[in-house]
Amino acid sequence: MIRLSRKYRFSASHRLYSPALSEERNRAIYGKCANPYGHGHDYEVEVTVAGRVDAVTGRSVSLAALDALVNGEIVEPFRYKNLNEEVPAFQMAVPTTENLAVEAARRLRAKWQIVFGADGPQFENIRIWETERNICEVSGREFQTNES
Amino acid sequence: MIRLSRKYRFSASHRLYSPALSEERNRAIYGKCANPYGHGHDYEVEVTVAGRVDAVTGRSVSLAALDALVNGEIVEPFRYKNLNEEVPAFQMAVPTTENLAVEAARRLRAKWQIVFGADGPQFENIRIWETERNICEVSGREFQTNES
Amino acid sequence: MIRLSRKYRFSASHRLYSPALSEERNRAIYGKCANPYGHGHDYEVEVTVAGRVDAVTGRSVSLAALDALVNGEIVEPFRYKNLNEEVPAFQMAVPTTENLAVEAARRLRAKWQIVFGADGPQFENIRIWETERNICEVSGREFQTNES
Amino acid sequence: MIRLSRKYRFSASHRLYSPALSEERNRAIYGKCANPYGHGHDYEVEVTVAGRVDAVTGRSVSLAALDALVNGEIVEPFRYKNLNEEVPAFQMAVPTTENLAVEAARRLRAKWQIVFGADGPQFENIRIWETERNICEVSGREFQTNES
Amino acid sequence: MIRLSRKYRFSASHRLYSPALSEERNRAIYGKCANPYGHGHDYEVEVTVAGRVDAVTGRSVSLAALDALVNGEIVEPFRYKNLNEEVPAFQMAVPTTENLAVEAARRLRAKWQIVFGADGPQFENIRIWETERNICEVSGREFQTNES
Amino acid sequence: MIRLSRKYRFSASHRLYSPALSEERNRAIYGKCANPYGHGHDYEVEVTVAGRVDAVTGRSVSLAALDALVNGEIVEPFRYKNLNEEVPAFQMAVPTTENLAVEAARRLRAKWQIVFGADGPQFENIRIWETERNICEVSGREFQTNES
Repeated sequence: MIRLSRKYRFSASHRLYSPALSEERNRAIYGKCANPYGHGHDYEVEVTVAGRVDAVTGRSVSLAALDALVNGEIVEPFRYKNLNEEVPAFQMAVPTTENLAVEAARRLRAKWQIVFGADGPQFENIRIWETERNICEVSGREFQTNES
Repeated sequence: MIRLSRKYRFSASHRLYSPALSEERNRAIYGKCANPYGHGHDYEVEVTVAGRVDAVTGRSVSLAALDALVNGEIVEPFRYKNLNEEVPAFQMAVPTTENLAVEAARRLRAKWQIVFGADGPQFENIRIWETERNICEVSGREFQTNES
Repeated sequence: MIRLSRKYRFSASHRLYSPALSEERNRAIYGKCANPYGHGHDYEVEVTVAGRVDAVTGRSVSLAALDALVNGEIVEPFRYKNLNEEVPAFQMAVPTTENLAVEAARRLRAKWQIVFGADGPQFENIRIWETERNICEVSGREFQTNES
Repeated sequence: MIRLSRKYRFSASHRLYSPALSEERNRAIYGKCANPYGHGHDYEVEVTVAGRVDAVTGRSVSLAALDALVNGEIVEPFRYKNLNEEVPAFQMAVPTTENLAVEAARRLRAKWQIVFGADGPQFENIRIWETERNICEVSGREFQTNES
Repeated sequence: MIRLSRKYRFSASHRLYSPALSEERNRAIYGKCANPYGHGHDYEVEVTVAGRVDAVTGRSVSLAALDALVNGEIVEPFRYKNLNEEVPAFQMAVPTTENLAVEAARRLRAKWQIVFGADGPQFENIRIWETERNICEVSGREFQTNES
Repeated sequence: MIRLSRKYRFSASHRLYSPALSEERNRAIYGKCANPYGHGHDYEVEVTVAGRVDAVTGRSVSLAALDALVNGEIVEPFRYKNLNEEVPAFQMAVPTTENLAVEAARRLRAKWQIVFGADGPQFENIRIWETERNICEVSGREFQTNES
């Protein structure tokens, strides 16, 4: 078993603000990230796959299939978007790094077996860098277990 | 004469769209950056100062004064802001990397001599990274010449 | 459960030299790092927290509390210091990357439950980069287990 | 127990092409990486060691011994080489990132106990960056278990 | 006048060896880079353009046109190639960082005015990183002067 | 004419403090960098050479000669040293980034023509990164003019 990781990027904007909280609480929790017009980041996404190395191809996963999945489910839907306004999941949840990683993991998990099959490479985890100093990791496996 | 450079950072959002152009032209020039809700970046700013090294302090510029100037004129006013909506200069100009660098240079130039005096260190240039692959540089000196 | 990591920085100096060893052994183990006047590094610190995402705030940990803890226990006490001379723990232990990470983990562990409570986010691990090529990781959990 | 990681580098060239597959399949799996003359990368290698910190030296592993092992088994044999033509393992296996990491792990594992002894620091894992966006990790421990 | 820079990447392989020199001289000048099978790098290319900012678009150059030019003349012809065998210019010249930068500048210069016109943005310079520690810069303007 | 740059590294410690100034002034100018025991950095040095590309070798400068010069004059004398205590120049001048760059340039200039000859590649400039956010550049040429 080896782990293969691949990194992707997208730029997006967001606002960290919860309508369920007072202005004061929003400011205390999110600081300037609660500013009404939002701001943005250049997000990095790392998807890690666990698998066996195919004896003929030397590959543990089809990179073309992985790229298509991640681009289709994460990069294209989030890229150059205002996450609060244009991504349905963030109309109900604040687009913190945590919720962004949870939503990205949920999207990959929902399509993983359709793309790779039950015996194929497994979705190990996803890591999202909001900035180079703020990183969130969600386990791909843990999620599958939790919901079954 | 030596050149001292110092780097700063801020996150902001913007939309690249000109009301003076058709939808089709906006899309052709700015691509997905014209999306209506905007997106964002983690900008890097490098300010370069030319000066002589003081024999006693070994400094060519007061870093405290330089930091106060750049934070006051650029980092604080742009940080966590939507540049189109919250920075007056970008109500009339599209916040491309070029215009952002021109505006940042204009702001430093306007206050430079007040802070550093006529014989002090000179504002050599400013460079702004919109992403690590898109960089714009404006000369601090050239601007002074052009306007006088 | 998600993992949130946050990075911090400090510059410090140190000397790798053990008075319990001969000059020859010191030189063999630490090389030029045993030079009598010491040298320095720009250290990077990454603290990883495991927790559940709060449904309202979208946060797994209070970033303000985490920053206050890490700055108070690690960044401020080590920053711009000579580790051998100015940090008590390194009067008895050589300030290698390993001992630095062990001491930093010990400091966070000692205050963790006071700050975050028994049911709050957990201290997963800490990683310290002495240089971009030398990294040491200590588990936050393992430590808690070992001492109880 | 702590984990110490150390990074190394080498430049090499390779061609991703399997003689067991048709031209069409090679192109589908490897894309332009199947070009007949090969291409190259600046590989990064991170070796992670798990061990206990020695009370006197503050070290968990002899860095001199680790450097000698990794340089002798990986950096020197792969550096400035055409992996397909000059490294025996890649005459039978395609030098993908996966196979490169598996071969590098096999080489370290084969010599590990000779160098560090049965009670010494353990080979935890190895990570190879083919580019900054393609990373493969192989567990050092898992390999030892599998073969015994 | 502002300067806009844009970065591109390609992976390629090369061998530093001159048939006009003895084996001994080749080894003395190029070291292990003279190994017969070649090796490779992940090259970075930065193209800098000098121009005026358009009052309506806020752009100093059409990024679509610049990307098409650089991708067509440099990235595509060099990417995943063995520079010695597959790029005509390097059948007569050793593909050092210097010659690679000179050839890349020559290619951009040859098409620049066709793409951007005589009054458009100017080709200021090109920088190529062979590795993050070896960089070569060639002036776009100087070249135009030399040949006219 | 092309410009070739090469990067080097060294770790060192220093204290920013001038005995010619009061404690209060030292604290005002250098902040925590005036702490009595000093602190340290991982310095990066970039030396840029201007020259013509040799038609046979494709090189503008002997990298072996350049490396020997920079290692002998800068890296080895400064590496793992306390700059204030162990480098003579900094017994009279505060080891700020500015003075460090001026001293490094002076050292290269003093030996340049002996190594490269009067018609050989020229010392264009040197840049020193104290941290990734503090950079100082000194012109190699300007210095030669000033002293003759």
